[in-house]
Amino acid sequence: MCGIFGYVNYLVEKTRGEIENTLLDGMQRLEYRGYDSAGLAIDGDKENEVLLFKEVGKVAALRKLIKTSSADVNKTFVSHVGIAHTRWATHGPPSPLNAHPHSSDVTNEFVIVHNGIITNYRELKALLVSKGFVFQTDTDTECIAKLCKYVYDINNHRDLDFTELAKLVLIELQGAYGLLIKSVHFPNEVIATRKGSPLLIGVKTDKKLKVDFVDVEFPDFPEITVEPAAAVSSATGPSLLVPLAGSDLRRSQSRAFISDDGVPMQAEFFLASDPSAVVEHTKKVLYLEDDDIAHIYDGELHIHRVRREEGQSTIRSIQTLEIELNEIMKGNFDHFMQKEIFEQPDSVINTMRGRIDFENKIVTLGGLSAYLNTIRRCRRIIMVACGTSFHSCMATRAIFEELTEIPIVVELASDFLDRRSPVFRDDTCIFVSQSGETADTMLALQYCIERGALTVGIVNSVGSSISRQTNCGVHINAGPEIGVASTKAYTSQYVALVMMALSLSDDRISKRARRHEIIDGLGKISKQIEEVLALNDQIKEMAETSLVNQKSLLLLGRGYQFATALEGALKIKEISYMHSEGVLAGELKHGVLALVDEDLPIIVLATKDSLFPKVMSAVEQVIARSGNPIIICNKDENAFSKLKTTYRTLEVPATVDCLQGLLNVIPLQLMSYWLAVKKGFDVDFPRNLAKAVTVE
Amino acid sequence: MCGIFGYVNYLVEKTRGEIENTLLDGMQRLEYRGYDSAGLAIDGDKENEVLLFKEVGKVAALRKLIKTSSADVNKTFVSHVGIAHTRWATHGPPSPLNAHPHSSDVTNEFVIVHNGIITNYRELKALLVSKGFVFQTDTDTECIAKLCKYVYDINNHRDLDFTELAKLVLIELQGAYGLLIKSVHFPNEVIATRKGSPLLIGVKTDKKLKVDFVDVEFPDFPEITVEPAAAVSSATGPSLLVPLAGSDLRRSQSRAFISDDGVPMQAEFFLASDPSAVVEHTKKVLYLEDDDIAHIYDGELHIHRVRREEGQSTIRSIQTLEIELNEIMKGNFDHFMQKEIFEQPDSVINTMRGRIDFENKIVTLGGLSAYLNTIRRCRRIIMVACGTSFHSCMATRAIFEELTEIPIVVELASDFLDRRSPVFRDDTCIFVSQSGETADTMLALQYCIERGALTVGIVNSVGSSISRQTNCGVHINAGPEIGVASTKAYTSQYVALVMMALSLSDDRISKRARRHEIIDGLGKISKQIEEVLALNDQIKEMAETSLVNQKSLLLLGRGYQFATALEGALKIKEISYMHSEGVLAGELKHGVLALVDEDLPIIVLATKDSLFPKVMSAVEQVIARSGNPIIICNKDENAFSKLKTTYRTLEVPATVDCLQGLLNVIPLQLMSYWLAVKKGFDVDFPRNLAKAVTVE
Repeated sequence: MCGIFGYVNYLVEKTRGEIENTLLDGMQRLEYRGYDSAGLAIDGDKENEVLLFKEVGKVAALRKLIKTSSADVNKTFVSHVGIAHTRWATHGPPSPLNAHPHSSDVTNEFVIVHNGIITNYRELKALLVSKGFVFQTDTDTECIAKLCKYVYDINNHRDLDFTELAKLVLIELQGAYGLLIKSVHFPNEVIATRKGSPLLIGVKTDKKLKVDFVDVEFPDFPEITVEPAAAVSSATGPSLLVPLAGSDLRRSQSRAFISDDGVPMQAEFFLASDPSAVVEHTKKVLYLEDDDIAHIYDGELHIHRVRREEGQSTIRSIQTLEIELNEIMKGNFDHFMQKEIFEQPDSVINTMRGRIDFENKIVTLGGLSAYLNTIRRCRRIIMVACGTSFHSCMATRAIFEELTEIPIVVELASDFLDRRSPVFRDDTCIFVSQSGETADTMLALQYCIERGALTVGIVNSVGSSISRQTNCGVHINAGPEIGVASTKAYTSQYVALVMMALSLSDDRISKRARRHEIIDGLGKISKQIEEVLALNDQIKEMAETSLVNQKSLLLLGRGYQFATALEGALKIKEISYMHSEGVLAGELKHGVLALVDEDLPIIVLATKDSLFPKVMSAVEQVIARSGNPIIICNKDENAFSKLKTTYRTLEVPATVDCLQGLLNVIPLQLMSYWLAVKKGFDVDFPRNLAKAVTVE
Repeated sequence: MCGIFGYVNYLVEKTRGEIENTLLDGMQRLEYRGYDSAGLAIDGDKENEVLLFKEVGKVAALRKLIKTSSADVNKTFVSHVGIAHTRWATHGPPSPLNAHPHSSDVTNEFVIVHNGIITNYRELKALLVSKGFVFQTDTDTECIAKLCKYVYDINNHRDLDFTELAKLVLIELQGAYGLLIKSVHFPNEVIATRKGSPLLIGVKTDKKLKVDFVDVEFPDFPEITVEPAAAVSSATGPSLLVPLAGSDLRRSQSRAFISDDGVPMQAEFFLASDPSAVVEHTKKVLYLEDDDIAHIYDGELHIHRVRREEGQSTIRSIQTLEIELNEIMKGNFDHFMQKEIFEQPDSVINTMRGRIDFENKIVTLGGLSAYLNTIRRCRRIIMVACGTSFHSCMATRAIFEELTEIPIVVELASDFLDRRSPVFRDDTCIFVSQSGETADTMLALQYCIERGALTVGIVNSVGSSISRQTNCGVHINAGPEIGVASTKAYTSQYVALVMMALSLSDDRISKRARRHEIIDGLGKISKQIEEVLALNDQIKEMAETSLVNQKSLLLLGRGYQFATALEGALKIKEISYMHSEGVLAGELKHGVLALVDEDLPIIVLATKDSLFPKVMSAVEQVIARSGNPIIICNKDENAFSKLKTTYRTLEVPATVDCLQGLLNVIPLQLMSYWLAVKKGFDVDFPRNLAKAVTVE
């Protein structure tokens, strides 16, 4: 969940100050992916000198540090490679040492920024230590930098080009990575490569671009021979194989971002783990695939493969980003999260736009249409997701069951993989992820593809890994979500999943009336969300007067509202750091009720549906135990006329039962927001969390 | 979850003191089902006088109150009916007024004890208020007592016998009930009836007993005519129908507990919601079915039906209880829960006894054998349970999936019902419940029976509703569990489910090695549980020194240990009232990690299995965020050699991955126990909870 950014200028003169600012601005756009430390590497004043700057905290702290540097900001570079990184700690606590870029040695022969986790780093480290390398940090990344130097050295520096060197390093790595490598041995060149972690490359040039990406026969990777030295036995882990020099590593001919007239071109390249860092510079981008090694030199991009695999696509295309920079900006709100909460009347409409014919009550999802009949005939639908996206699956499971009468299973991606749950060719698997890059969800997708299941993606980020690798899918079109705590993506995922259930049951006459009721409900939902948002001041006051000093909080719901309780609890955990837990109201008596006393704050979701009497029974049980609940109920609900005088209520409009969660979740989003603000926490950058979780 | 107890002596002379003691002792045996108030009704000194005694708190408080009564304890009764009740509040807070028995009026013409919830009590109350009845309490039960009097009065007292009266009352009730009715109009008679709430009747007599339970044509219930008065319109709810007097309510001829020589007999009857209250008096019992109306008079038991239903079994049989009273006693332990934790080396053996041939590695579950092939061919297995039983399903889901390769769904009973999840004829549904009477699980069972699925029960209580109504099943044979927080039932359910998975995959050659590994593991598990129990002192100290003053606690686990984390959290919630939550370690980064700081206590389940590296990665993330975890790990695990000096560990023996949860849960059971003891809470009677949750 770290952020990677790289900047290459070729035959475009820039001062050091300009290069530094480009790198720092790019990192700032990525800050929502991780921000406990930041760092960058640029060339120094002397030849073969690389400068590293690292600082704990946000990018602003790094910017301050760089200002104090003695390096001349006016020195110009005709061509240059700079790499940068914002970190979210996984191995080793946040510290300047542990921040990226990491270095091969004191002279910074190789410097590296890295997203992901190298799982065999202990073994690699043991080997490199035995070879005399001295490690400075607790990170898994440092061993990659040192491995680069080790491989370079044992090959006697000769003949290897940067790609060949990278291949020799990458075959030793286990785990997931997005990587940029910069080296004094290959000035003005950079290697960008990925496996399980996203990476894209944008280019800015005056030339017309083309892709010369012939479906070439990638050369087989040469056989690896074991190094004759005794090094292997001194390693504590499995033996490490390093090939001898002189292997025949021919280049492939695959090239992108080259000029269409064959004349070498001036160009600037922007490498990033996320398009939001690139969009202000260029909209022409190329997404790397797993095991791609991109090598930029002489103003061109060359793509190689770590290893040849049968059936692997060798086609890459230049895409045009549709994201607008101002969409990423905060506008008049104090925080992105607040802005995104208040965008929901629009974002749900964007999700439905062009897909629902409200007059004729028809739902058309273009991305699914070719597969609808296959899905209808499937044995099971398995919904796989993490975090908030998982809750959108929980929220819509019942309406899927009701409309399609297909067994629906909802799975947390990591648990699904941990169990290696059986998946069959006649299963349909739906993968829900805002970023489309969530590592666990991606792995689950691979797992299901291997088993031959039909795969469907429900994602926000167009062009993301999940949207590219699934058979079909629906983009939720909620617009960029920057706040780490997901809000508008949740409601848009919810709407998209309901639309999918409607579309799937289109052929069932018996469900026609129910479908029409739901479509009518969707037609009114935007206005109703606006009504709920008007509770803002009431919720702000409630947060301030009665909840801000509490340690714990329970949220109760059942039926459609169980998911709302879970999602509300997650929001509050994420940004207000209060231990909140969503509890199935029907399970109250099986243990949780013991917690209830006059002090513990409890929020009950008690809007009117067929389970209302049972929820009321839970409310009465809480009250019988001296509990003092806050009740989210429908406007003008008589059953509460007596309770309203005694207990606090938040009144939301009524809609169709299966859509009520779209309205009920909003007071909880606002509650979490105001709790965090009142506690003085950084709403958009909650501690310990990052936006897109692209490592397992 | 309340407890009902009734005592009837017929031609067996008893003093009032003796009758009171029998009732109080019976209630005390039931206390584990609910204990916020208690009450009883016995005859007074004058004719037609009924005395009510009620007190808040445990039965001991009621016993004290009765001692202060002026009623002569030496007065003798040749025949007498006494009814009693321990309550667990659902409607209205605990108070003497709200305690049972409830009364029809100030002269106590009808007195009633009731388990369950009457869902239409508001409507009934509105009608009765309009008829001039004055309600004393907030309970749903009081309206039943008043309805008895109302029906009796409008029928002009004439002709109706007690059964007929009860029928007219019962057809008005919606919801669930176990009921005893005593009336001055029918001295020395009692009505016992149930719907969705268990009730059994034991008899003690010198005569040889027989059942004269001819499969009779039960008379149709007469058509109901609307009362002509204007009462109905004054009610706020749906109209209440009360039949006019003089309906033709013929008696059926069904009788149980009659002497085999036809001569009226001296007898004592014990009516209870749970066999543990009856077993010290008699082992001859009859379980009532839903809609049975049992009428005891003249030393005989007559069974009628509220309404005739096609296909309803009219066979009842006398059963012999196999429970031993001393099994219910605490022994040398301070609390039942502690005793039950330490019984686990034996109770798991009892679960396996006669079922596993360890030498030939064969599992034979007699209760399933006739259905094994049907289950193997099923489309899905759905496991349904609540609370701790749900966790035993979660714990064994993965091994079911691995061994059977059948899709397995695990459902919380209430959520499963709330969603009205689709169930098909080719599904197998497994219902897991310690008591076999859990209301939500029972309703889910009914739901699945109606849809034609094959049903399997995994229960502890022999003769319970679930064990009687499922197609087949496994008794876990853990012995009576009295502690409200379930411990040994969890481990025995776990073992029983693993045995079922083994048995189901018996025909799969490819799983043979894995099966044998698991069977070997089960063979050693009892000894290993003993080893874990030796951690008792260490855990006691840990609870005292570092956890007792904490407000919140997280438990992390993944794979097989996710269920352990959930179960551990539930135990701690239930009896130490600490807000503990079980979290899937793989979901940590999707929100929960925000809670982590140096103060929040975290327990990580990090025993060695294929997911160990990922769990270690979670531990490292927690540590990187200044967290200070307690780690449950395997003995002699090198990966922890460094951590052990810094972090606290609890070391358990290693077993097969899918059985490790049986060992890992025990430190958590002990932790919850010592936390509750240190906090001075009543371990066996946690506030707000009761043992068997027999209402929704």
